[in-house]
Amino acid sequence: MIKTIEWTEAGVVMIDQRSLPSDELYHVCRTHEEVAEAIRTMVIRGAPAIGVAAAMGIALGVQNLATAPPADMDLAFDLICRTLATTRPTAVNLFWAIDRMKRVFQRQRSKSIHEVAQLLRAEALAICQEDIAANRQMGAHGQILIPDGAHVLTHCNAGALATAGYGTALGVLRAAVSAGKRLLVYVDETRPFLQGARLTAWELMKDNIPVRLITDNMAGHFMKKGEIDHVIVGADRIAANGDVANKIGTYMVAVLAQAHRLPFYVAAPISTVDLSISNGDQIPIEERQPAEVTDFRGVRVAPYNVAVANPAFDVTPAAYIHAIITEQGIAWPPFEKSLPVLAGAAGGQLTKGGRHN
Amino acid sequence: MIKTIEWTEAGVVMIDQRSLPSDELYHVCRTHEEVAEAIRTMVIRGAPAIGVAAAMGIALGVQNLATAPPADMDLAFDLICRTLATTRPTAVNLFWAIDRMKRVFQRQRSKSIHEVAQLLRAEALAICQEDIAANRQMGAHGQILIPDGAHVLTHCNAGALATAGYGTALGVLRAAVSAGKRLLVYVDETRPFLQGARLTAWELMKDNIPVRLITDNMAGHFMKKGEIDHVIVGADRIAANGDVANKIGTYMVAVLAQAHRLPFYVAAPISTVDLSISNGDQIPIEERQPAEVTDFRGVRVAPYNVAVANPAFDVTPAAYIHAIITEQGIAWPPFEKSLPVLAGAAGGQLTKGGRHN
Repeated sequence: MIKTIEWTEAGVVMIDQRSLPSDELYHVCRTHEEVAEAIRTMVIRGAPAIGVAAAMGIALGVQNLATAPPADMDLAFDLICRTLATTRPTAVNLFWAIDRMKRVFQRQRSKSIHEVAQLLRAEALAICQEDIAANRQMGAHGQILIPDGAHVLTHCNAGALATAGYGTALGVLRAAVSAGKRLLVYVDETRPFLQGARLTAWELMKDNIPVRLITDNMAGHFMKKGEIDHVIVGADRIAANGDVANKIGTYMVAVLAQAHRLPFYVAAPISTVDLSISNGDQIPIEERQPAEVTDFRGVRVAPYNVAVANPAFDVTPAAYIHAIITEQGIAWPPFEKSLPVLAGAAGGQLTKGGRHN
Repeated sequence: MIKTIEWTEAGVVMIDQRSLPSDELYHVCRTHEEVAEAIRTMVIRGAPAIGVAAAMGIALGVQNLATAPPADMDLAFDLICRTLATTRPTAVNLFWAIDRMKRVFQRQRSKSIHEVAQLLRAEALAICQEDIAANRQMGAHGQILIPDGAHVLTHCNAGALATAGYGTALGVLRAAVSAGKRLLVYVDETRPFLQGARLTAWELMKDNIPVRLITDNMAGHFMKKGEIDHVIVGADRIAANGDVANKIGTYMVAVLAQAHRLPFYVAAPISTVDLSISNGDQIPIEERQPAEVTDFRGVRVAPYNVAVANPAFDVTPAAYIHAIITEQGIAWPPFEKSLPVLAGAAGGQLTKGGRHN
């Protein structure tokens, strides 16, 4: 069992996803600033996982405040939240988790700072536990869509490492395997950060699920040859109309899947749905530093001073998506009808008002 | 001026394309076996360039024979040709160049070995010179298709480094710039060997042509945003019906171009056209070693023992291609009609009989 993130006496402990799979290092964050830095530098990544990290970061920040209580507790809490909110802009789970923590704080702020810290810690741990449970539910719902013998392409890492555990897209594949289905998973290496080659391949091999690693530009070739027949990915933010922001390259995979008439599925918790925005054009797309493209692990690849684009995400229009698998069930098109129903069933946990953009 | 390959007193000298752009090293081949190894290990790559290299390799091999003439000259020559023919299977220019050298040998074999060696060297140098001239012609014909202000995506390296000089696809872009057009060239990094990031970006920057380096999986995103409006690539083999084998990922780019209604052009010399095969399904696709995918310039990326696919090329069906630019002019669909006309104009230099597969 991979431990993506854990609350310990020493602080918030994360497996360092920058050094996997060659080194299994654990990164300890003792302050909320360190958690924010870990999110920013991708020690931890994946929309649900950074939601959990942000919640634990807030709990850690307030716990640290308790040793020297500030004059203005509201301001201090707000600063902690802001530090975590300004780490990465695209995944909405981050803001959703911060909002949950804020609501606990607002309800409990009359209590002693020690009690508030304890309640925030309990909320962060609940978010963590609920995420694993949601992934298992997603798996139970979604595995029906994956037939025995399927050759499934996945892009990036929507696995245990992208969540508190089990995974979203990989959770569905794990559930299909648990149901006795034999799968072959084509893994896009996912440049520039190589989440596929480094994380997805590693996770699936640990579970003895057959994988075949390819570079991102091979997916079309294998679809044309009939060697890939299904696609499943995660999501960082889903607009009310079903447009999906996910790791750069997801849109390319979706266009290829449509050209080859293959089903294209998205698996994500309801916390990834952002009903406050009507379509994907409104999702902020993070631009990351050029070095991710020009270098790899300290090895320079491209010429010095080359101009580089490095959008970390893209938006796949709803029209390319056959189904969105959530812990509340499967949303089918038209998503502007099905998503609010599933989101309503999740009970008011949604972000509101578009204030994150 | 980049010197991709040169015949010198010391042997055949190539710029080592494995170490560019960080190191500008020159690799000297003193035997035909060393030339074959240089082709196999991609010291030199690009369909026209490996054609030139094979021709020079044969000339070098026969020159070396002259110091100790073999009992059976025909057999010795045949072995040299075979050593060069078994280096890489996809690019037809390799076999086309070997065939040209064979024809010279067959015509001249009654002469002294020193004379034969000299004539073969002259033929290899002619192939080299003709390639540069063909690229300049391609540029003159093709640049008409590229409007001022175009944002052109290219995949892999179809530049000076892929040829004896000037380039095929990049030759067309160079000619457009020479004609006063302002271009921005989006360069796919082109995993796994990174010809785009390492070679194309380097070449274009040397010529002060504006480039923007992206990972392969970003092309769709920038097409959707309207930031890429044309695509031009090279080719390793073109079937009689216009199906094009080119670097892995070309097919993906073609599907994306079609989905966004962008023109998709191929630039290649007539020697790349293989009229002996009716369609792309018959083109042998080279599978290269997994280490190209699992490692990044000697840095291990993927888990040990991961299963990997590494087809070096894919086939883009003719239906995706708007025009094929050759030194004899532009071929328009239907290519099964236009290609033989242009090939005929080139005068019987074509490979025949499908014996290379």
